[in-house]
Amino acid sequence: MTRLRMGMIGGGEGSLIGPVHRMAARIDGMAELVCGAFSSDPAISEITGKREGIPASRIYNTWQEMIRNEDQLPSDARPHFVTIVTPNHLHYGPAMMALEAGFHVMCDKPLCISVAEAAELQEVVERTGRLFCLTHNYTGYPMVRRAREMILGGELGTIRKVIVEYLQGWMSTPVENTGNRQAAWRADPGRAGIAGAMADIGTHAFNLAEYITCQEVTALSATLRSVVPGRILDDDGTVTLLFGNGMNGTLIASQVATGEENNLSVRVYGEKGGLTWQQMEPNTLTLMWSDAPIQLIRTGTTFPGTGRAAPMHTRIPAGHPEGFIEAFANLYRNFMMHISALDEGRKPDPLADYPGINEGLRGMKFLEAVVASSARKAAITDL
Amino acid sequence: MTRLRMGMIGGGEGSLIGPVHRMAARIDGMAELVCGAFSSDPAISEITGKREGIPASRIYNTWQEMIRNEDQLPSDARPHFVTIVTPNHLHYGPAMMALEAGFHVMCDKPLCISVAEAAELQEVVERTGRLFCLTHNYTGYPMVRRAREMILGGELGTIRKVIVEYLQGWMSTPVENTGNRQAAWRADPGRAGIAGAMADIGTHAFNLAEYITCQEVTALSATLRSVVPGRILDDDGTVTLLFGNGMNGTLIASQVATGEENNLSVRVYGEKGGLTWQQMEPNTLTLMWSDAPIQLIRTGTTFPGTGRAAPMHTRIPAGHPEGFIEAFANLYRNFMMHISALDEGRKPDPLADYPGINEGLRGMKFLEAVVASSARKAAITDL
Amino acid sequence: MTRLRMGMIGGGEGSLIGPVHRMAARIDGMAELVCGAFSSDPAISEITGKREGIPASRIYNTWQEMIRNEDQLPSDARPHFVTIVTPNHLHYGPAMMALEAGFHVMCDKPLCISVAEAAELQEVVERTGRLFCLTHNYTGYPMVRRAREMILGGELGTIRKVIVEYLQGWMSTPVENTGNRQAAWRADPGRAGIAGAMADIGTHAFNLAEYITCQEVTALSATLRSVVPGRILDDDGTVTLLFGNGMNGTLIASQVATGEENNLSVRVYGEKGGLTWQQMEPNTLTLMWSDAPIQLIRTGTTFPGTGRAAPMHTRIPAGHPEGFIEAFANLYRNFMMHISALDEGRKPDPLADYPGINEGLRGMKFLEAVVASSARKAAITDL
Amino acid sequence: MTRLRMGMIGGGEGSLIGPVHRMAARIDGMAELVCGAFSSDPAISEITGKREGIPASRIYNTWQEMIRNEDQLPSDARPHFVTIVTPNHLHYGPAMMALEAGFHVMCDKPLCISVAEAAELQEVVERTGRLFCLTHNYTGYPMVRRAREMILGGELGTIRKVIVEYLQGWMSTPVENTGNRQAAWRADPGRAGIAGAMADIGTHAFNLAEYITCQEVTALSATLRSVVPGRILDDDGTVTLLFGNGMNGTLIASQVATGEENNLSVRVYGEKGGLTWQQMEPNTLTLMWSDAPIQLIRTGTTFPGTGRAAPMHTRIPAGHPEGFIEAFANLYRNFMMHISALDEGRKPDPLADYPGINEGLRGMKFLEAVVASSARKAAITDL
Repeated sequence: MTRLRMGMIGGGEGSLIGPVHRMAARIDGMAELVCGAFSSDPAISEITGKREGIPASRIYNTWQEMIRNEDQLPSDARPHFVTIVTPNHLHYGPAMMALEAGFHVMCDKPLCISVAEAAELQEVVERTGRLFCLTHNYTGYPMVRRAREMILGGELGTIRKVIVEYLQGWMSTPVENTGNRQAAWRADPGRAGIAGAMADIGTHAFNLAEYITCQEVTALSATLRSVVPGRILDDDGTVTLLFGNGMNGTLIASQVATGEENNLSVRVYGEKGGLTWQQMEPNTLTLMWSDAPIQLIRTGTTFPGTGRAAPMHTRIPAGHPEGFIEAFANLYRNFMMHISALDEGRKPDPLADYPGINEGLRGMKFLEAVVASSARKAAITDL
Repeated sequence: MTRLRMGMIGGGEGSLIGPVHRMAARIDGMAELVCGAFSSDPAISEITGKREGIPASRIYNTWQEMIRNEDQLPSDARPHFVTIVTPNHLHYGPAMMALEAGFHVMCDKPLCISVAEAAELQEVVERTGRLFCLTHNYTGYPMVRRAREMILGGELGTIRKVIVEYLQGWMSTPVENTGNRQAAWRADPGRAGIAGAMADIGTHAFNLAEYITCQEVTALSATLRSVVPGRILDDDGTVTLLFGNGMNGTLIASQVATGEENNLSVRVYGEKGGLTWQQMEPNTLTLMWSDAPIQLIRTGTTFPGTGRAAPMHTRIPAGHPEGFIEAFANLYRNFMMHISALDEGRKPDPLADYPGINEGLRGMKFLEAVVASSARKAAITDL
Repeated sequence: MTRLRMGMIGGGEGSLIGPVHRMAARIDGMAELVCGAFSSDPAISEITGKREGIPASRIYNTWQEMIRNEDQLPSDARPHFVTIVTPNHLHYGPAMMALEAGFHVMCDKPLCISVAEAAELQEVVERTGRLFCLTHNYTGYPMVRRAREMILGGELGTIRKVIVEYLQGWMSTPVENTGNRQAAWRADPGRAGIAGAMADIGTHAFNLAEYITCQEVTALSATLRSVVPGRILDDDGTVTLLFGNGMNGTLIASQVATGEENNLSVRVYGEKGGLTWQQMEPNTLTLMWSDAPIQLIRTGTTFPGTGRAAPMHTRIPAGHPEGFIEAFANLYRNFMMHISALDEGRKPDPLADYPGINEGLRGMKFLEAVVASSARKAAITDL
Repeated sequence: MTRLRMGMIGGGEGSLIGPVHRMAARIDGMAELVCGAFSSDPAISEITGKREGIPASRIYNTWQEMIRNEDQLPSDARPHFVTIVTPNHLHYGPAMMALEAGFHVMCDKPLCISVAEAAELQEVVERTGRLFCLTHNYTGYPMVRRAREMILGGELGTIRKVIVEYLQGWMSTPVENTGNRQAAWRADPGRAGIAGAMADIGTHAFNLAEYITCQEVTALSATLRSVVPGRILDDDGTVTLLFGNGMNGTLIASQVATGEENNLSVRVYGEKGGLTWQQMEPNTLTLMWSDAPIQLIRTGTTFPGTGRAAPMHTRIPAGHPEGFIEAFANLYRNFMMHISALDEGRKPDPLADYPGINEGLRGMKFLEAVVASSARKAAITDL
C-alpha cells in the first residue's frame, strides 16, 4: 500500500495532542507528514517542521497559506489529508477550507463550537464527498470495538442502562492562571466555546456511550458547575441521559476530581448481561452475566467467538499491552484505509469504521442541550 | 463486660438479613439472643427459636405478645434491646411499642415508610431516652471510618464532589413473580413503601455519602425507572445531590444492573485529594493526591497517622480480610457499648458512633424527595 | 443441633490466634466455650476466662489440671472438644493428654515440632478414635474448596505445576528482641521447633498446595536463610516441590518480605487451564483457559456448574465479602459436624472435610525435609 | 536531530518480533528503515521490503549480501545500524559481520547460543567501538526505570530478596508440531540453543532481576522440565538465585502455564520496603513500606521526588496508558541517542542506558549454569 501524505495544522512545540497525532500516524508506517502550519507563531511552526524533517518550503506560517499552496501541488505531492489539532474555535475555518480544496480532513474533537458550525461542516462534507474523521480516539481501543460488536450482536440482550464517566483532576486548582497553556485555552470561552470540561472530555464520554451501545440520546437533564473560583466555564457536571428506547444513562465529567488522571470508563447493562471497560487499563473488557461467571476478555486473545473487530484493531499478542497511542493510531489506520479504498474505487472494510462528521454534529447538539438544561435547573431538554 | 440480652422480631427461616444480624451479634461474644417473634407464621418462629436454643416460653407468635411478655420479666432476664428485621412496613409498629416499653432498639433499614412515621419515631426516641440503631451497616467498615476521619480532619481539603453507586443485578428479571420471597416484598408497595431500589439500597448509598463527607444534602434532582415490565416500584435511578455548601454529588442505585453482585462504592473529591472505597473489596481505601502518589490504606495496618477510628473497628492484623459480617458486627458492638455506658452512667467512646434515628429520618426525607423530583421530570427538589 | 461444648488451652490476653479461634467458634452459634487454661500465667488465664463469662471453677492454671478436672464432669457438662492454641512446642503434650482422656482435639498449626511427635499423635488419634482437626484454616475459604473441587473433577486436566507463596514483612526487623511476643516465640528454636517462617507459614503454603492439587509432594530442594542478623531460625526460603506424578511446584515463604501483609497465594496449571487464588482478596477465584476467556468465580454465586463445595462454605450472598474469620469458622463448623455425626452414628457430609492428623504429619515431614535439603545445599531430598 | 538509517536482518512476513521492531523504530520518528534481508526465503524478503517502501536494490536475499553491499554505500546513505531479528542461532553470524563492517547493532535476545559465542561478540564490540543493543525490552518501561532508580538511590534499603516470574501458556500443547512457526524454532535445539523457555523468556526475567536490583547473580540452583511429551528443550523451570551480597532470589519461567498470556512480574524486597511491577499492567509500580501505607507510582505523573528516569521514558500524560511498543521504542530511542552522541562527539545522557553486550554475555552464562545445575539435580552452580 502507498504511504499517504499528511499535512498538519496546529500541534507545534508545547502542544499536547500534536505529538500524539504524529506518533499515531507514524506507528504503522502508513502516513508521511509532508507539510504543516504548526502554530500561529511562525518561529514555533518552523522548529516543529524542521524537527519533523519537513523541507522549509512546506512549513507555513498560517493554515490559509498552507492549504492554498499545497492545493497547487501535483497529485503525487499534495497531501491526501490534513490533520487539524488547534483549539476548538479554530477547527471550523481550517476544516471548511481544506474540504473545499478537496483534502480529506482528520480533526481533533470537539468538532467546533456550535451546532450551526457543525451543520455547515456536515453540508460541505456531504457535498464534496471528502472523508472526515473526528478523533474520538477512545473508540479505537480493541476492547471498545469488541464491546460494541457484542452489543450489536445482541449478546447482552436489550440494553437498559449505561454509566459513563470521565474523571480528571488536573484542573482542580486555577492552573489556567499559572502558565499552563493547555488549561488556558480550555478555560477560555473565546477559544473553547460554550462549555469547558463538558466540551473537552464530556463529548468523549457521550460519544463513547453512543458508540458502544449503538443507541442515540434523545433528551437529557444536566447539572454543570464551575467549582474552581473565578472559572467561567464548567469544570464538573452530571448528566442523566434518556435514550429513545427507554434506555437510560448517567454521564459524569469532571476536571476537578482531584487525583484522577484520565479515568474514562463505561459500563453497560442489558437484559442478559453487563460489561465494564476502563480506559486506564484498556486491555481488559469485563463481562458480567445473569447466569454465568464473570469473563475477562483480553486484547490479543483469539478464542472461538472472539469476533473480528478486536483482532483487527490489535497489533501484538495477548499480554503485550497496547495503549493510548495504538488506539489513536487505529483511527488513523481506519481513516487511511477508507481514503485508499475511495481512491482505488474499492469498498472499505465495514469494521474499519471511525467517528466522522455525524459524531461531531451529535457532540455539538449534546453540548448545547447540556448547557441549556443546566441553565434551566436540570430540566429535561431534547437533543 | 456483661453479655447483653437481645430479642428479635422477624428474621425467621428464609430471611436473608435475620441470620446476618444473629452472626453479627454473636461474633464478639457480647450479645445473647434470649427471645424472639421470628415470623408471622408460628411454625417458622418456633423452628428458628429452637435452632437458636431459645426456650419455648420465649418464642412468640407475634411481636406484640413478645414485647408485652418480655416487659414483665425481671431486670436480670428481660432483653436489653430488641432487633427488628421485618419488611419495611413492619418497622414502625414494633419499634414504637418496644421503645415505649423501655427497650433499646436495633432496626433494619430503611427506618420506615414515610417521613411522618420517622418523625414520630424520633419523638419517641427522644422522649424515652432509649437508644436506637439503624443498620446502615456499611458505615461499620474500618475503611469507611478511616475515610470519614480523614475528611473530618481536613486531609482532603474542602469536599467538592461525591459519587456514590449501589449496583445490583439480581432483580433484572421479574423474580418477584417466581417465588423469590426477598424480591416479593421489596417489589410490593404495600410492604416496601413508596420506593423500591431507592429504598432498599439507595438509602444505604445516601447514608454513606452523608456519613463519609460529613455534609448534608439539601436538594436533589432524580430520575427513577421501573425497568422490568410490570414492576410498580423503581428498580433503577440516578440522583444529582446538591449539598448546602456548594458541594455536589451523583447517586446511582440499580437492582437491574445485570451481573452486578452488591457493588456499593463511594468516591469523594476535595480540594487537595480524593478517595475511593468499594464495598466488595472493603479492606482497601484508595487515596489520590494532587501532589503525591496514590496511597492505599489497608484494614489492620497501624502506621504513624493511622488514626484511631479504623483500628477500633478492626479485629485481626492486616492481610487477614474482614468482611460484611464483621462490619455489621461493628454496629452491634458500638450500639452495645453505648447501652452499657448508659447503664453504667459512663460517657461512651465518641468513635463508637452508629447510625441512629436521625439517619433514619434523613433517609425518609431523601426517599420522598427522590420520588417527588422524579415525578416532576427531574425538577430540583428540596430535602 | 445441640451446641457443642469447647475447652481452650492457651489463647489468653495478648494472644493473636486465641481470639480468632473464639470468634470462629462463636459466629455460627454451634459452640460454647465452657472452660479454659488460657495461659501459663494464672492471672492472665483468669482475666480471659472471666471476660468469656466462664465460671471461676472452670478457669484453670494449667492444662493438665483442666483436662484432669473436666474429664470428671458428667457427659452433659464435659467439653466435646478441646482447642489448643499454644506455641508449637506445647501442642504435643496437651493433645496427647486430651485425646487419651477422650476429648476430640482442635489444634493450631503446625502440629508439633518433629515427625516423631507427629507419628505418636497419629497413633493415638487412630487408637482412640477421637477426631482431630489441625487449623490449616486457609482450606476453609469457599474459593479454595471450589478450586479443589474443580481439580478433582478434572476440569483443568492433569495438573502440571503449582506455585504457592506466603509472604509477610512483619519480621523484617528483629522484632523478637523488642517486646513483640508473637515474634519472640516464633524466633525461638525452643518454642518454635526446627524452623521459623517455614514452620509458621510455610506449612500453610505446603498444605494448601497439596490440598488444592490433591497431589502429594515426594521430594524437594530447599534454600533457607536467616536474613535478619542474629536470627537463628529461617525467616525466608524457597522450595522446589517434586510431586510423584511428574508435577512440579515452587513454594516461597518469607517473613522478611518488607511491606507484605499476609500475602498467601496459590496458582495451579493443568493441561487445559490454570487458576489463581489470593488470600487477601479471597472471594475471587480466577480461571484461565487455553481456549476460552478468563473467568472469575466469586463467593456466593450459584450458577449452573457452581458445584456444592463453595456454597456449603458460604454464609451470605455474592458481593457481601466473607473473610478470614468466616473461613476459619468453616473448619470449626465442619469439625463440629463430624463430632455430631459421630455422636449420632451418622455418616458426615463428605464435603465437610477438614485438615487432620495426616496433614499434621505431612507438615512435619515437609519441615524436616526442607531443613535437611537446605543444609545440604539444596540437594533433592525425599519427603 | 537527523533521522538515523536502519537495516534489518530477519523479521519478514510471519515474524512476530520483526513488526514490533519496526513499529518501535518508527514511533518517535527517529529512524528510517532503508534496507533489509528479511528472510532466508527471497520471496518473503521481497514482499516485506516492498511493503516497507524500500527500493528493490536494497532488498536482499541474504544478510551476507546485505552487509557487503550496504558497506559500500556512501556515508550519507549507508545504515547507521543493523537490527537482527532472526532465531537465536542466527544472531552471532550477522552480528559479527555487521560489527566488523562498522555498523552499530541492535540485536534481539538472547544474544546467541553459547558463552563462547558471546565472549567473541563482546571482544569484537570492544575492539570495533561499535554500539550494541540487546532488546531486553522490558527494561524500557518507565516504571522499571523508576524502580531501578529508587533502588539505586537506596530508598528500599539493602535489597534482600527478588522474585521474578515469566509465565506463558501458549506452549502447553505441542504447538511446534502443528504449524506454529514461532514455536517450531523455539523448540528446536538446532535453532534455539541449549534451552527453550529459559532462553526465550527466562533470560528476560534474569536480565530484569539484575537490572532492577543492580546486583549480580553469582550462583544458582535450577530445576528444568520438558512438560509436554516429546519436547526436547525445557518448557518450565524454577531457579533459586544467589547474589554475592547475601541477597537471594527466585526465578520462575514457564511456557506451559496454561492460560497465562505474557505474565512477567518482578518483586523486590529491601530492608525498608518492597516493590512490585507487572508487565501486563505496566503503568503502575507498587511500593510497600514497613512504616507507611502502600504507594502506587504511575507512569506519567510528576510529583516531587518523581526522579528523572521515568519521565524521560514517557511520552504522554498520566492516565494515557503506554504499552509494550512504547517500552520497546524506548530502547531504540536510547540506542539512537547514543549513536548520535557518538557521531557528534557528545557524552550521552546517563539515563539513556540500554542493555548491551555485557547483558548478553550474562544471559548466556545464566543459561549454561541453569542447564548444568538442573542436570546435576539442582546442585548449586556458579555463574
